[in-house]
Amino acid sequence: MSSPGTVYIIKVGGNVIDNPAFLDSFLKDFAAVPALKVLIHGGGKIATRIGDKLGIAANYVNGRRITDAETIDVVTMVYGGLVNKQVVAKLQANGCNAIGLTGADANIIPAVKRPVKEIDYGFVGDIPEGSVQTAPVKLLLDAGITPVLAPLTHDGKGQILNTNADTIASSLAVALSAHYTVRLIYCFEKKGVLRNAEDDESVINLINRDIYRQLLADGALSDGILPKLDNAFAAIESGVKEVLIGHAGDLQRNTTGSVAGTLIC
Amino acid sequence: MSSPGTVYIIKVGGNVIDNPAFLDSFLKDFAAVPALKVLIHGGGKIATRIGDKLGIAANYVNGRRITDAETIDVVTMVYGGLVNKQVVAKLQANGCNAIGLTGADANIIPAVKRPVKEIDYGFVGDIPEGSVQTAPVKLLLDAGITPVLAPLTHDGKGQILNTNADTIASSLAVALSAHYTVRLIYCFEKKGVLRNAEDDESVINLINRDIYRQLLADGALSDGILPKLDNAFAAIESGVKEVLIGHAGDLQRNTTGSVAGTLIC
Repeated sequence: MSSPGTVYIIKVGGNVIDNPAFLDSFLKDFAAVPALKVLIHGGGKIATRIGDKLGIAANYVNGRRITDAETIDVVTMVYGGLVNKQVVAKLQANGCNAIGLTGADANIIPAVKRPVKEIDYGFVGDIPEGSVQTAPVKLLLDAGITPVLAPLTHDGKGQILNTNADTIASSLAVALSAHYTVRLIYCFEKKGVLRNAEDDESVINLINRDIYRQLLADGALSDGILPKLDNAFAAIESGVKEVLIGHAGDLQRNTTGSVAGTLIC
Repeated sequence: MSSPGTVYIIKVGGNVIDNPAFLDSFLKDFAAVPALKVLIHGGGKIATRIGDKLGIAANYVNGRRITDAETIDVVTMVYGGLVNKQVVAKLQANGCNAIGLTGADANIIPAVKRPVKEIDYGFVGDIPEGSVQTAPVKLLLDAGITPVLAPLTHDGKGQILNTNADTIASSLAVALSAHYTVRLIYCFEKKGVLRNAEDDESVINLINRDIYRQLLADGALSDGILPKLDNAFAAIESGVKEVLIGHAGDLQRNTTGSVAGTLIC
């Protein structure tokens, strides 16, 4: 049992969302986490599949996906509706009193539409420092209600924005660390940060700033993990007690005292 | 200004949701209602349009729409995601601290999948008497947060269910009347209950049980309004202070002391 005042901020990636059996087993473990907790879910490929069926072509500039007006509607439907509410209904079935939200709900995450420089990313929201509103999250947590956040924010002027789920997780973790001991766990389909992307067993158990610098110098890390690590260090430096990157199937161990995966400190 | 302890339960119909300019003006008025309030929105035709684009044909038996497995996913996306979150973002822009929910969220409305008799309605949820959980709604209202409910419930076993928005509104109104003075307002595109469906000015200003019986005997009422009136009388008889059926454009008058539309008592 965690000490009182601990909140787990748990982010689960799109590859878990896309796999129904994996997701069900993850949600069962999440429901059983013996502490206050928040779930942030990624979107998965279902938005792309539904967008394709609706005839909305994915739009890329320099390899970066653009969130145009049609795409923000699709992700609002799919992330904020289909995925979020199915996760909530399943958590309820597992005895976890979940409430599904976006950053627009209760104004939890006011964001800013990314300024147009070389690329116009469209309806993508960046979260300014100090922007997250902890009062509604605290209200729910302290009432025994578990927030489940979709990767969406808003601009305060009526527009929903697409925001990276890892960033939402770290921003929320930092904001809540003013009120709780916060442990941030990134759950995905790998066992942790790998020294060799081809070898699933090459998990690095601990990364601090020095080790990170060395890994970057060695070119050992895959591109995909770098934003996660940057988010993790930013969180640690802003008051988050602990960041873990690990397999979604290891959530139970990672919330009951042991560590499976990569600990960032 | 309403007396303390008053909550307005305001339902807005699908025809308003489908008309962006009408919806914007309604949401501005809703945001300005000078009391605690809850919004319940219908779905509108957008779910049908998106279902058509996705190749999901509407399925009718004896003229009643069936919510099959594909359809419940579409309405979960569209009502619970697109419509609900756009309404929330717009209310936030109007200074109303809205939170968008379904009946699955915080377990507000546990429902029962409609039993199969002559017709299998599919994933349609009926709300048992006494089922609505007022604690989370009260928690939000008393914190100055305005719940916005999509017409969706859940069965507690992981399944989202499609539930009539009028029924959600009256069930919630009845449940909250244990804690507040509740005024229930059904807002739609007509000026009230009409004596003659062809004449938009033939509004009946007041309906009680006796008048209702007479109107039914005369065959004066259109079929569409009957479930609304049945819901209204059920609400009044279970503790709701007042039920009004009126035009969405008359919300401001109907929440500041005057009455435009049909008062049920």
